[in-house]
Amino acid sequence: VNAAQLQLLLQAVASGATSAADAHAAIAQLPFEDLGFAKVDHHRELRKGVGEVVLGQGKTAVEIARVCTALLARASSVLVTRVTADAAREVQVLVPQLVYHASARTLRAGTVAPRAGRVAVVTAGTSDGPVADECTETLAAFGIAADRIADVGVAGIHRLFAQLERIAAADVVIAIAGMEAALPSVLGGLVATPLIAVPTSVGYGASFGGTAALLSALNCCASGVTVCNIDNGFGAAYAAHRILRAMDRVRSAA
Amino acid sequence: VNAAQLQLLLQAVASGATSAADAHAAIAQLPFEDLGFAKVDHHRELRKGVGEVVLGQGKTAVEIARVCTALLARASSVLVTRVTADAAREVQVLVPQLVYHASARTLRAGTVAPRAGRVAVVTAGTSDGPVADECTETLAAFGIAADRIADVGVAGIHRLFAQLERIAAADVVIAIAGMEAALPSVLGGLVATPLIAVPTSVGYGASFGGTAALLSALNCCASGVTVCNIDNGFGAAYAAHRILRAMDRVRSAA
Amino acid sequence: VNAAQLQLLLQAVASGATSAADAHAAIAQLPFEDLGFAKVDHHRELRKGVGEVVLGQGKTAVEIARVCTALLARASSVLVTRVTADAAREVQVLVPQLVYHASARTLRAGTVAPRAGRVAVVTAGTSDGPVADECTETLAAFGIAADRIADVGVAGIHRLFAQLERIAAADVVIAIAGMEAALPSVLGGLVATPLIAVPTSVGYGASFGGTAALLSALNCCASGVTVCNIDNGFGAAYAAHRILRAMDRVRSAA
Amino acid sequence: VNAAQLQLLLQAVASGATSAADAHAAIAQLPFEDLGFAKVDHHRELRKGVGEVVLGQGKTAVEIARVCTALLARASSVLVTRVTADAAREVQVLVPQLVYHASARTLRAGTVAPRAGRVAVVTAGTSDGPVADECTETLAAFGIAADRIADVGVAGIHRLFAQLERIAAADVVIAIAGMEAALPSVLGGLVATPLIAVPTSVGYGASFGGTAALLSALNCCASGVTVCNIDNGFGAAYAAHRILRAMDRVRSAA
Amino acid sequence: VNAAQLQLLLQAVASGATSAADAHAAIAQLPFEDLGFAKVDHHRELRKGVGEVVLGQGKTAVEIARVCTALLARASSVLVTRVTADAAREVQVLVPQLVYHASARTLRAGTVAPRAGRVAVVTAGTSDGPVADECTETLAAFGIAADRIADVGVAGIHRLFAQLERIAAADVVIAIAGMEAALPSVLGGLVATPLIAVPTSVGYGASFGGTAALLSALNCCASGVTVCNIDNGFGAAYAAHRILRAMDRVRSAA
Amino acid sequence: VNAAQLQLLLQAVASGATSAADAHAAIAQLPFEDLGFAKVDHHRELRKGVGEVVLGQGKTAVEIARVCTALLARASSVLVTRVTADAAREVQVLVPQLVYHASARTLRAGTVAPRAGRVAVVTAGTSDGPVADECTETLAAFGIAADRIADVGVAGIHRLFAQLERIAAADVVIAIAGMEAALPSVLGGLVATPLIAVPTSVGYGASFGGTAALLSALNCCASGVTVCNIDNGFGAAYAAHRILRAMDRVRSAA
Amino acid sequence: VNAAQLQLLLQAVASGATSAADAHAAIAQLPFEDLGFAKVDHHRELRKGVGEVVLGQGKTAVEIARVCTALLARASSVLVTRVTADAAREVQVLVPQLVYHASARTLRAGTVAPRAGRVAVVTAGTSDGPVADECTETLAAFGIAADRIADVGVAGIHRLFAQLERIAAADVVIAIAGMEAALPSVLGGLVATPLIAVPTSVGYGASFGGTAALLSALNCCASGVTVCNIDNGFGAAYAAHRILRAMDRVRSAA
Amino acid sequence: VNAAQLQLLLQAVASGATSAADAHAAIAQLPFEDLGFAKVDHHRELRKGVGEVVLGQGKTAVEIARVCTALLARASSVLVTRVTADAAREVQVLVPQLVYHASARTLRAGTVAPRAGRVAVVTAGTSDGPVADECTETLAAFGIAADRIADVGVAGIHRLFAQLERIAAADVVIAIAGMEAALPSVLGGLVATPLIAVPTSVGYGASFGGTAALLSALNCCASGVTVCNIDNGFGAAYAAHRILRAMDRVRSAA
Repeated sequence: VNAAQLQLLLQAVASGATSAADAHAAIAQLPFEDLGFAKVDHHRELRKGVGEVVLGQGKTAVEIARVCTALLARASSVLVTRVTADAAREVQVLVPQLVYHASARTLRAGTVAPRAGRVAVVTAGTSDGPVADECTETLAAFGIAADRIADVGVAGIHRLFAQLERIAAADVVIAIAGMEAALPSVLGGLVATPLIAVPTSVGYGASFGGTAALLSALNCCASGVTVCNIDNGFGAAYAAHRILRAMDRVRSAA
Repeated sequence: VNAAQLQLLLQAVASGATSAADAHAAIAQLPFEDLGFAKVDHHRELRKGVGEVVLGQGKTAVEIARVCTALLARASSVLVTRVTADAAREVQVLVPQLVYHASARTLRAGTVAPRAGRVAVVTAGTSDGPVADECTETLAAFGIAADRIADVGVAGIHRLFAQLERIAAADVVIAIAGMEAALPSVLGGLVATPLIAVPTSVGYGASFGGTAALLSALNCCASGVTVCNIDNGFGAAYAAHRILRAMDRVRSAA
Repeated sequence: VNAAQLQLLLQAVASGATSAADAHAAIAQLPFEDLGFAKVDHHRELRKGVGEVVLGQGKTAVEIARVCTALLARASSVLVTRVTADAAREVQVLVPQLVYHASARTLRAGTVAPRAGRVAVVTAGTSDGPVADECTETLAAFGIAADRIADVGVAGIHRLFAQLERIAAADVVIAIAGMEAALPSVLGGLVATPLIAVPTSVGYGASFGGTAALLSALNCCASGVTVCNIDNGFGAAYAAHRILRAMDRVRSAA
Repeated sequence: VNAAQLQLLLQAVASGATSAADAHAAIAQLPFEDLGFAKVDHHRELRKGVGEVVLGQGKTAVEIARVCTALLARASSVLVTRVTADAAREVQVLVPQLVYHASARTLRAGTVAPRAGRVAVVTAGTSDGPVADECTETLAAFGIAADRIADVGVAGIHRLFAQLERIAAADVVIAIAGMEAALPSVLGGLVATPLIAVPTSVGYGASFGGTAALLSALNCCASGVTVCNIDNGFGAAYAAHRILRAMDRVRSAA
Repeated sequence: VNAAQLQLLLQAVASGATSAADAHAAIAQLPFEDLGFAKVDHHRELRKGVGEVVLGQGKTAVEIARVCTALLARASSVLVTRVTADAAREVQVLVPQLVYHASARTLRAGTVAPRAGRVAVVTAGTSDGPVADECTETLAAFGIAADRIADVGVAGIHRLFAQLERIAAADVVIAIAGMEAALPSVLGGLVATPLIAVPTSVGYGASFGGTAALLSALNCCASGVTVCNIDNGFGAAYAAHRILRAMDRVRSAA
Repeated sequence: VNAAQLQLLLQAVASGATSAADAHAAIAQLPFEDLGFAKVDHHRELRKGVGEVVLGQGKTAVEIARVCTALLARASSVLVTRVTADAAREVQVLVPQLVYHASARTLRAGTVAPRAGRVAVVTAGTSDGPVADECTETLAAFGIAADRIADVGVAGIHRLFAQLERIAAADVVIAIAGMEAALPSVLGGLVATPLIAVPTSVGYGASFGGTAALLSALNCCASGVTVCNIDNGFGAAYAAHRILRAMDRVRSAA
Repeated sequence: VNAAQLQLLLQAVASGATSAADAHAAIAQLPFEDLGFAKVDHHRELRKGVGEVVLGQGKTAVEIARVCTALLARASSVLVTRVTADAAREVQVLVPQLVYHASARTLRAGTVAPRAGRVAVVTAGTSDGPVADECTETLAAFGIAADRIADVGVAGIHRLFAQLERIAAADVVIAIAGMEAALPSVLGGLVATPLIAVPTSVGYGASFGGTAALLSALNCCASGVTVCNIDNGFGAAYAAHRILRAMDRVRSAA
Repeated sequence: VNAAQLQLLLQAVASGATSAADAHAAIAQLPFEDLGFAKVDHHRELRKGVGEVVLGQGKTAVEIARVCTALLARASSVLVTRVTADAAREVQVLVPQLVYHASARTLRAGTVAPRAGRVAVVTAGTSDGPVADECTETLAAFGIAADRIADVGVAGIHRLFAQLERIAAADVVIAIAGMEAALPSVLGGLVATPLIAVPTSVGYGASFGGTAALLSALNCCASGVTVCNIDNGFGAAYAAHRILRAMDRVRSAA
C-alpha cells in the first residue's frame, strides 16, 4: 500500500516479471501472518524502524505466546507490554527465552544493536517508577540508551536544578509525573530539547486516575511539550524512537 | 445561637431583667433585616470580623442597591463582587458613593482602618489579572495591605526566583494561576507561609473552563496548599483575612 | 536557591572564605541525599518548618524503609502516610521503631516538641473517622494538639451547636465531611477562625468517590473556606501547620 | 389505556351498546388533538389532576400560540414555561389573554379554584429568585397557595431558624438553592414534612452550571429529601401538586 | 433549637420553674448521646416521626453494634442500612436480636405499629431487586405496607399495563430502574400519585455506574417526578414516609 | 396492545365469540408469565422475531435457571448473556442443557433454523475478542451466519485492505474496536453496507473504560455509522437481526 | 483501493492494456478533485450509493460554494448540512440553485429518483422538530420517502399507541428524542424493524446538552436499538439509506 | 539558574572580576524586563532557540502592544497568538508593523532566517483549517517551511494515500483532526517520522468541544504519536521546532 512499492510492483507486472495474481497477493497478503485470532505484522520493522510490539493486556497467555513465537521466527527480538506476573509465568513456560520485568510489566527477548542518541527519563516521584520502567525497557528493546533521573518533582525544586545539565544534554527528554504533574511545565521552560510528558495515575481523590496529571500536561504553559496517555511509558519511548530516527536520517545524509 | 450569648440571655431572663418573649425575639430576629427578597445580615461583622459582602451575580441592580443602602445605614463600608459594568452603572445612580473597579468587577464604598499583616498576591500570567484584582479589592475593603507580584509563571522560572524573598516575607501567599497551575506547587515547595491557590479559567481546550487548573491545585505535590473555587479571588482574600485575624488574636494575647 | 542564602554564599566567595567550586556544590547538591530511586530532602525542615513526610502509596516496603532510615539518620522523627497494613508489616521488620496506626494508615516514629496552638478536627459522620485519624496523626507528628469532635453533621444540627464554643475556640478548624459536605458551609458561617474543608469519599452513587463533597466544599456559600483534595487529612494538617507557624512568627516578634 | 376504562368499554361492546370500530377509535384517538407539529393532550387533566403544561423552550411563538389556543378551547386555564421575553411578546399578539411573568419566564391565562394545602417555597439566596418565581407561578396556575421565604441560606443560619416555625407548618417544603446547596440538608434534618430540593445554576467555576448543587442535593445526609432537575421550579411545584392531591384523597375519604 | 420548645423553656426559666443553667443544658445537650466516635440522636423520632436510621457503610462492626445498643436502650426498633454480610455476622454476635436481610443488606430489630397508607414499589427488571429490597425493608421498619411489583420495564410494556390499576391505587409510587430508566417517565404520564424515581446502577459500559439512569430520571418528561440518589432504596422509602405522614396530619385534622 | 390485535379482539367480543372479561384477560395477562421476581415475556418472539434474551448480570443463579426453565417450556431455544463462570456452573446444575461459552460469557440451549443473510464481525485487535464472541454467540442463537475477521485495526491498515472484499460482501458489518476505535471510521468510508460500531473497554488511562472509543464511534466522520453501548456485542447482533428481518420481508414480498 | 478493482487494473497492466504509470495514477489520484482547501470525493457515489454530503459547519460561504459547484459539475444533486441562515444567504448568491431549509439548516439542489422503502421519522416532542427536519431533508436528498410522526413522547403514551400501526409498517424507524429519551426504549419493545435512536439536545440543567438523552439511548433496555450522535438527524438518515440499500440488494437478487 | 552559567559567574566573583552584589543581580534580574503587569523574558531565545511568543487571549490590546514593543526593542521578530480581530485592530494602531492573519488569529512582525527541515501540516477536513493556519503561521515565525496538505480525513482514505509519499518525506508530521480524529491513528501506522496529533473542536454533540478528538488521539493504537491540547496549532509547531533543533544539533556535530 506504500505508493513507492506499489509503483515498483506495477512496473514488475508491466514488464512481465511478475504476474498480476502474484502482485495482488504480494500487496494484500505478504506483510502479515494470520494466526486466526491475530494478524502478526512482520512488515512493521520495514515501515516503522522497529518491529511490532505486543500489547499483553486483554490477551490470554497462549495468545501472547503464539504471537511472540511467530514474531521471533522472523525477527531477532520481541517486546510485550502490560503483562501481569501471572500471565508472564504462563507465557514463559511456552516461550522460555522471554525475560519478565516485574515493575515494568514487560516480557522481552533477543538482542538489538545499540543506536545513537540518548533519552533522559525523568520522574517526579518514586511512585512513578513503574511507568519509567516500562519506558526504559521499551527504549532498551529498541537499542536506545536511557538516562534515568528519579524523584526530582517540583516540591523540592533544588533537586531538579542539580540535574539540569544532565537533562539538558539528552537528545529527547521524557518527563513522567503524577498528581498535578508540574514537572513537564518547569522542565519545558528550562530545556530546548524535544520534551514528552507522561502523566501517571499516581495520586488519589481528585487525581481521578491520572486525569488531573493528564489535563495539567495538556495545558502546559511551557511551549511545545507533547503528551502521551496516562501511564503510557511505552508510547513515550516509541515517540523518542521516532525523533532519534529523524536524527539518524540527518546523520545518514551528512 | 452562640452558646455563650444564649447563656447570658437566659441568666437575664432568670433574673427578670429580660422577659421570655423579649429574649426569644432577641435570639431569633435581631441579627438581620428583612428586605423581602433578601435578609441583610448586620450581625455578620461581630460574628466574622468583617461585614457581609454582597454577591452581585444573579441580583438585579435595584436589589444590589437596596442591600447596599441597608448595609451602609449601619456600617462604614460595603463591598459588592461580580457586578457587570452595565449593572454597576445602574447601581451607582441609586447609590452614588459606590466606586466600580472594571477589571475586578467590584463595587466598593466607605473606608476601613488598616490592619496588621501583609498578603502577597502572586499571578502566573498577565491574563490572571482580573482574578488578582478581585482579590486585592477585597483585601482593600478589609483594610489589608496587598503586595501584587505579576507574571511569574513557571515557564520562565527565573522570574519567580527573583521575587522569592519578597513572597516569602508575606504573612499569607495567594497564588493565582490558570492553564496547568503549576505555580502553587513550585511556590508551596519554597515558602513555609500559609499558601492559598486560586485556579483560574485562563486557558482553552482541555482547560475545560479552569477545571485543569483546579485539579492541579487540588493534587498539589507541595504539602498544605489549600484551594479556592475557580476564579475566586474574593474567597482567597477572605481566607487570608481569617488567617490574619488568627494572628491578631496572638497579638492581642501578647 | 533561596535568594538570601545565595547572596551570603556569594559574599563568602568574594571574601575568599569559600571557593567557587565549593559554593557551587553547596548550592546544588547539599540539600538532599540521593538513594537512586529517591532523593531524600533533608533540607525541608529548614525550608518548611517540619521535615519531609513520606507518601507511602506507590512505594514498595523496601523503598519506604530506606527513605525512613535515611531521614531518621538526620532527624528525630518521621511520618509515612497512605501505607497499607500489609506494607506496614514489611516496613516494620526493617525499621522496628515505626508505629502503625491502622485507621489513619500512617507509620510514625520519634518524638516532637509540643507547639503552641490548637486545631479542632471536626467530622460530619462516624464514617469520616479514618480521614480524621490521618489528620490527627499528622498533627501529632508535627507536635500540634488536636481537639477531635466527631459526628456533628448537619442532619442533626443541634449536635453541632452543642460543640460550637469548643470549635470556635480553636486556632484553626478542619471540617471533614463526605456525602454532600454541608458541614463546612454551616461552620463557615458560624466561626471566624481559619477553616479548612476536607471532602471525603464517604457516600455512594452520585457521590462519585467524593466528587460531590469536593464540589460542595469548593462552592461553599460561607466565605473564605479553603479546600483540600478528597480524603486528604494529611494536607489539611499541613495547612494548619503553616497557619500556626505564621502565628508563631507573631509570637516571636512580640 | 387505563385498565378500568378498557373493561367498561369492552362490556359496552359486548352488550352491543358500542360497536367494535367505535370502541377502537375511542381508545386510540380521543384523548388528544393533532395539530401536525404537536399532539395536544386534552385528556391529561382527567389523568393527572391538572391540565397539560406547555414547555415553551424549543417551540416557535406560533407553535406556542396554537397549542395554547387549542388548550384554552377546552380548558379554563393554561400555563407555558421557559418562554423568553421576545417569544412572549409574539405569543401575546396571537393570544392576548396570556400574561407574562418576566422573572419566572412563564405565560399564564385563566383562573383556577383555590385548593387546600400550603407549600413553603424557600430559597437560599436572592439569586435563586427566578427559579422560585417559576415554582410559585406554577403553584398559582394549579390553585395552590405558596408561602415564599427568601434568602435563608446556611451562611447565616440564624436567618433560617427565625423562619423555622413557618416552614415546618407547610404541607410540602420546596428548598431552592445553588452553589453547594446545603439548605436542603439542614432543612431536611429539622422538618418532617415532604421536602423537595431544587438545585439551581447560581454559582460559577466549579459549580459547573448547577452540577455541584445537584450532586449535593442527591447526596443529602438528611433522609428522604427528593430532588428535581437543575433550575426546575416547575417540576417541584408539580411534585407538590401530586402530594397535595394524595392529601385530598384522604380528605375525600374522611 | 425548635423555636416553640425554646419559648416554652424560656417561660419556664422566667417563672423560676427551671434555672438558666438547666435550661441551657436542656437545649444544648439532651437530644443526643455521645459515644465519642458517634453522637446518637435519640431526639430524631420526635423531630422526624421515625427514629434515627444507622448508615452501616464506613462503620466498623463494633461501632454499628454500639450505636444499635444505644438506640435500642431507648427505642423499640432499629434499622441499619448498607451492611455487608461479613459485618452483619460480627454485629449479630454483639446484638443478637438484629436480623440480617442479605439482598437488602439491612439489619433490623424490634417491632413497629402498622400505619395507614400503601406504597407501590415497582422495579423495571429483576436485577433491580436488591434496591427494592432495601426500600421495602425500610418501609417495614417504619410500619408501612409495601406492594412489590417486579420486572415491568418498558421493553415489554404490556407487563406494565397489566399492573396499572394496582400501581395507580397506591398512595405513593416508587419506581426503581437502571440502564436508561424509562420506567419513571412512562409511569409518570399514567398515574397522578406522588412518584419517586430511584435510578439503579444496573447496567454496564455507558451506564457509568447508574449515571445514565440518574440523568434520565432527572430529565423525566413526565412532570413532577422527583429523584433519589443511585441505588438509594432507603431514601425513597423515607420520602414516602414523609408523604404518608403529611397524609396522617390530614387524617388527624379530619 | 398491538392495535391490529386489539381490533380483532374487539370484533370477536362484538360478535359474541369472546366475552368481555375473557378479552380483557387476553389483552392484559396472556403475553407473559409471572414468576414473582420476573415476568417472562413469551410473547416477544411474535412481536420481535426472536425470543426473549435473558440478561444474566444482577440475577442470582436460581433466578436465571427459573427464567430459562420457563422459556424452554414454550420455546425451542434460549440465550443468557453476561453470566460469570461461577454463576454458569450453578445454573448448569439446575438446567443441564445450557452450554457455557467462557469468553462470550453466555449460556445457550436449543437449536434454531438457519436464516438468510451473513454478518461480518470485524475486530480491531485480539483483545476485542470476548465482545466479538458475545456477538457471534448471539447471532448463532438467532440462526444467523457470522463471518469473523480478527485483528484488522488501522495501525496496520494493509491487514484491513486484504479483507475488504470479504467484509463488503456481508449484508451487515459489525465493527468492534477499543482504544480510539478508528476502525468504524475507516470501514464506514469503504463499504456501503449497514455498519454498526461496538466500542470496547480495551485500553487504559484516558480510555476511561471505553468512553474514548464510544465518543470516537459517535463522532465518526464516515456517514451513517450507528453505535451500541460499550462492549455490547449482544446489542449489535440484535440490531443486525432487525436489519436481516427487514431484508426477509423484501424476500417474502418478492 | 477496492481489492476487486485493484485486481482488474493489475490484469490490464499485465496484458499491456494499461501502463504501470497510468495504473498508479488511476488508483491514487482519480477519485477526487483537489480544490486546495478541500478534496472533493466524486467517487463516493459509486462507493457508497449516494454522493458526498457537505458539512457546512466550520466552512466559509465561499468554501461551501466552491465545493457545491465542483460536485454539481459532475452530479445531479447536492446536499449541505449545518449551514447557518447567514452563511446560506452568501452561498446562494454564488450558487443560486441551492434551496435553504431554515429549520433543518440544509442547502439542497437537484433532483433524485425516488427509491423503494419508507422511513418513519418519529419525534418525542415539538422541540425535536429541527433534528427531524435535517433527517427528512437528507432522506429527500437521497430519494427516500419519509413518514413524519410528531410529538408522541412517552409522557402521554396513548398518543404513541395511536400511531403504532403506521410506525410498525415502515422499513426503518428513526426515533428522535431529547430530555430522558425514553421513546426509543418504548418503541424498541414494540416494533421489530431496524430502529435508530437520535438523542437531541432538547432539555436543560442535567440534560447537559443532550448527554442525558445520549446515555439513555445507549443504555436502551429494548434490544438492538442503535444510536447516532446528539442532534445528528443527517446520520440517522444516512444509516437508513444503508439499510434500504441492503434491502435493494435483496430486490435485485430476487 | 543554568548550572554552567552559575559556575562561570561564581569563578568571576572568586577572581574579583565581579562583585557579589553584581553577580546576584545578574543571576536574579537580568533575563527579563518588568512591565508591572508582565515580565518580558528576553532571555528565552537563548534558552529555547526562539523568542517568547505572546498569548493574546486574556490580555488587553494595550498590554499586547506594550509587550510587543518591549520584545521588538531587542529582537528582530515577534508573534502573538489567539488575538481576536477587534483586539488586533487596536494593537495595530499602537504597533503598526504587526500583520494580522484572520483565520490563524495571529499577529506577526519581523523576519526570520529560513531553517533546515520541513514539517507536513496535514488536516482531516476543511473545517480544521484555522488550527492549521495557527500552526503554519507559528512555523513561519520560526523560519520553518511547512507543507500544507488539506482534507485527507479517513472517510475517503484514498485521498490520504495519494499524499502519502509527500507526507512520509517530511521531517515532522503534524496531524490535525476533529470529530473522532482517526487521522493520527492511520498516519501513525504508515509513517515512521515524529508525529504530533492536534485534536480540534470541529464537531458537535458528543464531540464535547473536541474532547472526543482529544481522547481519540491519546488512545491512538499507532505507537509513539504524541498529543497537544485541543486546537493548539501553536503548540504543535513549537514541538516541531524542538525536534528540528535536535536535528540541527546533529548537523552541527557532523
